[in-house]
Amino acid sequence: MFLTNNYNVTKCKEKQATPKAAFVFLHLVNEKTFYVVERRVAKLRVFEFIGGTILEAKEISQAVISRLPRYFRYLGELKDDGVERISSQELSTLMKVTASQIRQDFNNFGGFGQQGYGYNVEYLYSEISKILGLDKTHHLIIIGAGNLGQALANYMNFERRGFLFEGIFDQNPALYGKKIRDIEVQPMENLECFVKENSIDIAVLTIPKTGAVNVAEKLVHYGIKAIWNFAHVDLNVPDDIQVENVHLSDSLMKLSYNLNSNLK
Amino acid sequence: MFLTNNYNVTKCKEKQATPKAAFVFLHLVNEKTFYVVERRVAKLRVFEFIGGTILEAKEISQAVISRLPRYFRYLGELKDDGVERISSQELSTLMKVTASQIRQDFNNFGGFGQQGYGYNVEYLYSEISKILGLDKTHHLIIIGAGNLGQALANYMNFERRGFLFEGIFDQNPALYGKKIRDIEVQPMENLECFVKENSIDIAVLTIPKTGAVNVAEKLVHYGIKAIWNFAHVDLNVPDDIQVENVHLSDSLMKLSYNLNSNLK
Repeated sequence: MFLTNNYNVTKCKEKQATPKAAFVFLHLVNEKTFYVVERRVAKLRVFEFIGGTILEAKEISQAVISRLPRYFRYLGELKDDGVERISSQELSTLMKVTASQIRQDFNNFGGFGQQGYGYNVEYLYSEISKILGLDKTHHLIIIGAGNLGQALANYMNFERRGFLFEGIFDQNPALYGKKIRDIEVQPMENLECFVKENSIDIAVLTIPKTGAVNVAEKLVHYGIKAIWNFAHVDLNVPDDIQVENVHLSDSLMKLSYNLNSNLK
Repeated sequence: MFLTNNYNVTKCKEKQATPKAAFVFLHLVNEKTFYVVERRVAKLRVFEFIGGTILEAKEISQAVISRLPRYFRYLGELKDDGVERISSQELSTLMKVTASQIRQDFNNFGGFGQQGYGYNVEYLYSEISKILGLDKTHHLIIIGAGNLGQALANYMNFERRGFLFEGIFDQNPALYGKKIRDIEVQPMENLECFVKENSIDIAVLTIPKTGAVNVAEKLVHYGIKAIWNFAHVDLNVPDDIQVENVHLSDSLMKLSYNLNSNLK
């Protein structure tokens, strides 16, 4: 057991809830057409307004969404290399996906480009960044200060994307006070107050599977909205809590399957 | 640069190639029907023989394959808990997938069970283990002895599945000789001979993206068959080399997207 079960004992200050945001940003496609990307629902929807009337409302599939981080990565590298414009054909060659796939994906968001001119790299990078929510700041804690927890804490790249590493917790007293990027490992008993006082929205779980389900339930109770789960177990949390699983064993087994199925 | 480009200088002993294996195991469904799972091709195929004649040959989709590790994980837990039989309905409730999905998935491999009796947990666990290639032993090295490399090296569970941790390499001289689970960190210059002399088939890349593409190409040249890639870059390797990417940033961005799209 990591924590006491006494959920009602709260000695820390309660924070005001942040204002609710429904419509998050607007795309100006041309002087007549606007796309509004609504993030209030689980699936991204794009509305087209012409003269104040909604002409179209479509949902973006999770398949498209799962491809966005890769586009974002390639565009970031192009941007760093000083590339200003790129055609879907050039991007296709670079990323080894069809140009048609790229155009279809981007058409979900109004196309992002002008026929014959290619895409403006900086603009496209910035728009995908907004769609992924990377224009916002997230406050992140890590539960479990073992090798993996420390590796993630040290991965500076996350900070560049707006994921601020605020705290790290462990149940092992030998680790209390140990500094990881100037942040001290704290005992699990501090978790509840810390989450509430620092508006923590994302928890990274790098603890063994035996404690993970229980800790996840408590994190939700304390107000966490998303869990990046490295524990090798499926968590049991309400539907409005976002969970992204990184089951490393499953990934290695897939590799093993493909390795064995490819024996010649 | 991690290594010299001189691919031709090989001072280490060459090993004989292992015999080629095409048909890997047989399923006895009943006294008349056998399923042969062939692993020679990239996609798993099941052949049904009745009286020596192939009646059916079907390919197993990657979607089914990607669900197998999760079945394997749940069955392993049931086995550890001493459960001998489970119905598709009970498994459905436990895993939160439909019983119909479970039956469809298992039917790809001949069903694994008898109507009305449920599945034999031990048998099902063992069969899925074979399909995933976990009945074999793999020899694995880690390139990059930073926090993530050390975390993976220390993850004992992989050994239980037949993934033997044989060596760890880094380009930082300060780490040479440091012991991780009794295995010393070696310089990158030792890589070629080590891979060849120890029949290494899987390399885990936990180095920064700048060196990863180059190192991957060399690993393939040395004889590596599969790469578990944690470097945040797409590798450029031949089609017969299996790559499983764990792009942690992409995973965090997906979490961020879902968190923001769920704002109320």
